[in-house]
Amino acid sequence: MTIETNLMAELTWVEYQASIQRENPFVLLPVGALEQHGPHLPMGTDHLVPLAISKAIADRIRAIVAPPFNYGYKSQPRMGGGNHFCGTTSLEGHTLSLLLRDVLLEFVRHGVKRIAVIDGHYENMMFLTEGIDLALTEARRDGITDVRVVRLEYWDFTSEETLKKVFPGGFPGYALEHAAVMETSMSLHLHPHLVRLDKIPNDPPADFPAFDVFPYNLTQIPPSGVLSQAKGASAEKGKLLFDEYVEKISAALQSEMERP
Amino acid sequence: MTIETNLMAELTWVEYQASIQRENPFVLLPVGALEQHGPHLPMGTDHLVPLAISKAIADRIRAIVAPPFNYGYKSQPRMGGGNHFCGTTSLEGHTLSLLLRDVLLEFVRHGVKRIAVIDGHYENMMFLTEGIDLALTEARRDGITDVRVVRLEYWDFTSEETLKKVFPGGFPGYALEHAAVMETSMSLHLHPHLVRLDKIPNDPPADFPAFDVFPYNLTQIPPSGVLSQAKGASAEKGKLLFDEYVEKISAALQSEMERP
Amino acid sequence: MTIETNLMAELTWVEYQASIQRENPFVLLPVGALEQHGPHLPMGTDHLVPLAISKAIADRIRAIVAPPFNYGYKSQPRMGGGNHFCGTTSLEGHTLSLLLRDVLLEFVRHGVKRIAVIDGHYENMMFLTEGIDLALTEARRDGITDVRVVRLEYWDFTSEETLKKVFPGGFPGYALEHAAVMETSMSLHLHPHLVRLDKIPNDPPADFPAFDVFPYNLTQIPPSGVLSQAKGASAEKGKLLFDEYVEKISAALQSEMERP
Amino acid sequence: MTIETNLMAELTWVEYQASIQRENPFVLLPVGALEQHGPHLPMGTDHLVPLAISKAIADRIRAIVAPPFNYGYKSQPRMGGGNHFCGTTSLEGHTLSLLLRDVLLEFVRHGVKRIAVIDGHYENMMFLTEGIDLALTEARRDGITDVRVVRLEYWDFTSEETLKKVFPGGFPGYALEHAAVMETSMSLHLHPHLVRLDKIPNDPPADFPAFDVFPYNLTQIPPSGVLSQAKGASAEKGKLLFDEYVEKISAALQSEMERP
Amino acid sequence: MTIETNLMAELTWVEYQASIQRENPFVLLPVGALEQHGPHLPMGTDHLVPLAISKAIADRIRAIVAPPFNYGYKSQPRMGGGNHFCGTTSLEGHTLSLLLRDVLLEFVRHGVKRIAVIDGHYENMMFLTEGIDLALTEARRDGITDVRVVRLEYWDFTSEETLKKVFPGGFPGYALEHAAVMETSMSLHLHPHLVRLDKIPNDPPADFPAFDVFPYNLTQIPPSGVLSQAKGASAEKGKLLFDEYVEKISAALQSEMERP
Amino acid sequence: MTIETNLMAELTWVEYQASIQRENPFVLLPVGALEQHGPHLPMGTDHLVPLAISKAIADRIRAIVAPPFNYGYKSQPRMGGGNHFCGTTSLEGHTLSLLLRDVLLEFVRHGVKRIAVIDGHYENMMFLTEGIDLALTEARRDGITDVRVVRLEYWDFTSEETLKKVFPGGFPGYALEHAAVMETSMSLHLHPHLVRLDKIPNDPPADFPAFDVFPYNLTQIPPSGVLSQAKGASAEKGKLLFDEYVEKISAALQSEMERP
Repeated sequence: MTIETNLMAELTWVEYQASIQRENPFVLLPVGALEQHGPHLPMGTDHLVPLAISKAIADRIRAIVAPPFNYGYKSQPRMGGGNHFCGTTSLEGHTLSLLLRDVLLEFVRHGVKRIAVIDGHYENMMFLTEGIDLALTEARRDGITDVRVVRLEYWDFTSEETLKKVFPGGFPGYALEHAAVMETSMSLHLHPHLVRLDKIPNDPPADFPAFDVFPYNLTQIPPSGVLSQAKGASAEKGKLLFDEYVEKISAALQSEMERP
Repeated sequence: MTIETNLMAELTWVEYQASIQRENPFVLLPVGALEQHGPHLPMGTDHLVPLAISKAIADRIRAIVAPPFNYGYKSQPRMGGGNHFCGTTSLEGHTLSLLLRDVLLEFVRHGVKRIAVIDGHYENMMFLTEGIDLALTEARRDGITDVRVVRLEYWDFTSEETLKKVFPGGFPGYALEHAAVMETSMSLHLHPHLVRLDKIPNDPPADFPAFDVFPYNLTQIPPSGVLSQAKGASAEKGKLLFDEYVEKISAALQSEMERP
Repeated sequence: MTIETNLMAELTWVEYQASIQRENPFVLLPVGALEQHGPHLPMGTDHLVPLAISKAIADRIRAIVAPPFNYGYKSQPRMGGGNHFCGTTSLEGHTLSLLLRDVLLEFVRHGVKRIAVIDGHYENMMFLTEGIDLALTEARRDGITDVRVVRLEYWDFTSEETLKKVFPGGFPGYALEHAAVMETSMSLHLHPHLVRLDKIPNDPPADFPAFDVFPYNLTQIPPSGVLSQAKGASAEKGKLLFDEYVEKISAALQSEMERP
Repeated sequence: MTIETNLMAELTWVEYQASIQRENPFVLLPVGALEQHGPHLPMGTDHLVPLAISKAIADRIRAIVAPPFNYGYKSQPRMGGGNHFCGTTSLEGHTLSLLLRDVLLEFVRHGVKRIAVIDGHYENMMFLTEGIDLALTEARRDGITDVRVVRLEYWDFTSEETLKKVFPGGFPGYALEHAAVMETSMSLHLHPHLVRLDKIPNDPPADFPAFDVFPYNLTQIPPSGVLSQAKGASAEKGKLLFDEYVEKISAALQSEMERP
Repeated sequence: MTIETNLMAELTWVEYQASIQRENPFVLLPVGALEQHGPHLPMGTDHLVPLAISKAIADRIRAIVAPPFNYGYKSQPRMGGGNHFCGTTSLEGHTLSLLLRDVLLEFVRHGVKRIAVIDGHYENMMFLTEGIDLALTEARRDGITDVRVVRLEYWDFTSEETLKKVFPGGFPGYALEHAAVMETSMSLHLHPHLVRLDKIPNDPPADFPAFDVFPYNLTQIPPSGVLSQAKGASAEKGKLLFDEYVEKISAALQSEMERP
Repeated sequence: MTIETNLMAELTWVEYQASIQRENPFVLLPVGALEQHGPHLPMGTDHLVPLAISKAIADRIRAIVAPPFNYGYKSQPRMGGGNHFCGTTSLEGHTLSLLLRDVLLEFVRHGVKRIAVIDGHYENMMFLTEGIDLALTEARRDGITDVRVVRLEYWDFTSEETLKKVFPGGFPGYALEHAAVMETSMSLHLHPHLVRLDKIPNDPPADFPAFDVFPYNLTQIPPSGVLSQAKGASAEKGKLLFDEYVEKISAALQSEMERP
């Protein structure tokens, strides 16, 4: 390629085809959301982060980054504050599953054999799983059975060691990590100009009951949309997390590429 | 706002909400495709161009640019070469309609009153129209009837005068303008580093019959994916087109904002 | 056959089966709409015309005419005046695609190898295309890959020469040809008793902006539903157009039948 | 009206609107199928008959006949011989329900208050019922609750007295009345030129078990597609049946029109 | 098996797998409804009865009883009183078809070759038929064509002889047999503690016209929800009916198991 | 009520209606799955347990237990071993969402104001959430906004104290608790005759990577379907867990009933 890029949107079809045919690369599909992330983080956080992770992975292993899904499934109170916030812009579950099914089937038609869905929004997980299952069922009916699709939530690659460094006072759990220390730190590392440092709220962690109720009980949801403290965030912690995700996910995908 | 941005993905929800409530801005939704654009243009051309147009409009009128739809409806032979090319990555029509319906209904929930769908891929048109109709039907059932949605294909804003400048030898018609003079010129203006100048093919214009046949008659489709000459393209022509689109679409939206 | 008919609805299944097995005929599927066509043309115009064309084609080439689709996709302002008129009776896009998919798959099951969808309503085009694509995908999963489906809009077969005869003062363009000279002329040729000559309006052509807005801007739409002058219509012009369509489409289908 | 017609497809929208607003007519929607009807009856029997009935009703009461649905739900062995016959062309159940929902909602938008779905194909019944229910649910959410939809299978209007005249040897039951005495008689009355008298089979009535099995047990299904004797058919019997349907359905609809 | 059970929900997967592989059993799927059954019968009658029948069949032939579908299609006035009653809890038709399609495809994946859908709610019939058809189409695309699915409504196995015993005064017809003599008798036989004997209404049989109207004409529907007399019911009659169903359905399934 | 039952299927509609109108009870909907649970637990475990919990809750608070959903979403490797096991019988995600939407809308029509979806299968969670959201959106369009729906996974009500008693050696985490100590203990408490004690496997806990791959990497999944040790299970532990769930969920629902 004359132009140095791993982005599918920037490649010509001739270059893309050559890569698929000669290099058997992973196609990485970043999937996120457009969702409130408190008064200090941009609403695109959930797709900006997996896009950045995907690009960094593609610098390490043979991979092409497909254009991201910028919209995801409805935010849930205990995970992302709930879907009632202004700005949170979500899809129905079936729409998201169909969207992924359609795109995966196209990659399969192109001859791609390894695809990784890099998810940055917890609520997406099951609808993405369904989209993958629908696509592989249809691919199978087209006689194609040698495609492998990985779906991962990037934060599942955080080591205990890193957690201790990021949360010296103890990890409050992934459930409350919305617009909190981890996402804020990574945003400070990846796009510091988009973090409104002066707007980081100083609220205590949210305290949810063990069940969901619809319509939401708004007295349980922090009005800021931040589920736990973001005050301890730093660009250094963000780099630590980001580098670990890139390294570990790259290794995982590499092993899936080599697995017979 | 402390951060200068018109991009919804870069705004916090608090800033976005304030804008919606105080300024009643247009929300601009760029919609495109991931589609072969010949050996010389990037596959993201159809979403990169409307995204650039949307950003430029948002510099002129009160508007916020939503994250783009990067995938569109299946490419058709007489419009974009057909959906059989490697790299072309398309959605089912129903998926695209549902995707737009869902996102529009969220904007409506936010209190947005003016939305413009800025389409850069001809094949999307009717499925977007359907998505808008589905959304407005549901909004009406929620008692909301004061939302207005514009849908436009940007090239419909080309003036006769500009056409003459861009095609001194005569305009071959929009149907064949895929990866040809207009898109290549705009790409040279907007992102020259993504145009593979040495790869521009020198094929004669495609000659299609007056009907479509499925599966495609591949003998009718240029193997390069370019439907007519791109040789006359230039950054200057691209700027001319781009500026006209931005100016005229801005004016059109402004008039829709002011229309009672 | 003892009864002279090319209509599938009038054939017995035994006759139809014999024809499919022995003659490998085209099955022609007329698709139209039930839509306002001004104060002078019947609302069935868009399905009556393609049905008449299909019957005439079946008199020329080996073909069987399937019962028409009498309802089509939602009328659009710049194409057919918009879907707000009383009497216009339209389908959701997905419904139309499913309808065509289902019927095509049945023809495939019968052993039909050549099918032509004869469309008389512009707004249908992309949803028909989608229905064909869905059907061929399913047929392929049933192991059937030798079926060919043509989709055409009949007016695309108008020659420049004919246009000049029909519009001696210059062709206003297909976009405004709703209930105007072409459709009125063909109606005068095909079913003159259904044309209310005294009701032909004398309005100037509609003047639409380069974009669509929903809900419609009713000030832009002629209250009559006629988008441009119908005054120059005549049965002679109608015959000229009709004969050309029948001849040219017959030839096109014949060539598709013979193409390997 | 200057043109004497009750057919919606032949009316202009202006005439139709005037009728809806001034006369509050029933809109009659004939729904049928394209289905094998033995070696002697045309495949369109199930939509030709309800269309004829609808037209005759519209000559008696204030009613407009909408264009028919020419395709219906999959033929079942014990009702219509099964869907494996060549020529039988059926829709998925969901497609049929959506089709009816869409069309009913349009009539509702026009201001129609009384609609009758005149069904000529038993297998359609439940999917039509569902389509009506879906439409009325949506209409209710648009605030419209004064629309009334009748759905009927025309043969349910046969009197005991008529049955005795048509079947002097005893009525074999509606289940086996596919392409048999009743349909053949009505076809002889309505369109005798479409009945292949010499092709009427002389098979004994089909003998089905009390259950359905899929895929069909083809040994149970008469290869002709005729489920019981058609030999006793006559145009006189057809007229008797037809006239009774028209008279009784007209009376039923009239009573629904007058019911508060 | 160490535990004596024919219920799939009570088997371990290892036991189930062993049975499928070694014994090629029928899988019986009871399908019913949750629907008003008058003031004297439980709302689960339509799923309780086919579940009991299925269990008894599984004691006779090689069969495993899958967990029942407890919810069915919308009750219709002439069959079950209508869907407006409090307590009647119904599915959309498409939902029911998809539900059955999904479950059947799983049985097919398990290697099951004979499946019987034992229906206890008339309104389900066509939507179950559609679910079966959808599943077999998909199974065929997976290359599986040796699966056989029976669908039956249990009351179709009532003999003339039994009808005479149960209705010494003459059979009013299945249409009105909702919460009447047959269902009440079977309930008295199967679960007498659930029959509120003192609540059996003493209303005359319902008198419906030959058509359906939506919304329902409530003056035609007995407020009790009982469509005809239940007074003649008895546990003895219930046993007679139940035993006949079990015996005859067992025989029918056995013959389908042995049919090549 | 003369018959002592809290089961909706056993109530007459008259009794149910009286309860809804007079007592405003919770309707509890147990939702589970039919899924392999190792060689020692019945496949119905995931619906049998929430059904038992629901019944016990209904003995404590004003509540009626609706018939359970016996089938759930596709089992996932890291949660339930994966959907490839023989016997596991799952629904598509969209089917499950529609099923719940339909049933909830019926309860809403009945006048029910408090509904609790008692989920016993982790993979269901997001599709149930979607079903609730779809139902409440439709209810809102019917003008009903005072319905409250709780969705809970029962194990989220386990206290730290109980966890310590059940896992004296340390809790391996909910992810691996499939057919392991908690489910086996509860089964020993609720239906000991359905536990095959001699079949409890003695495998080490499963070791999954931090991502999912499709098709599954079968080398990572225990062939028994048990994800961690079940050896420490006992009826006593089961009673401890069960009683805590009943008590705590009852309290939670009671508080939701009283919350304004």
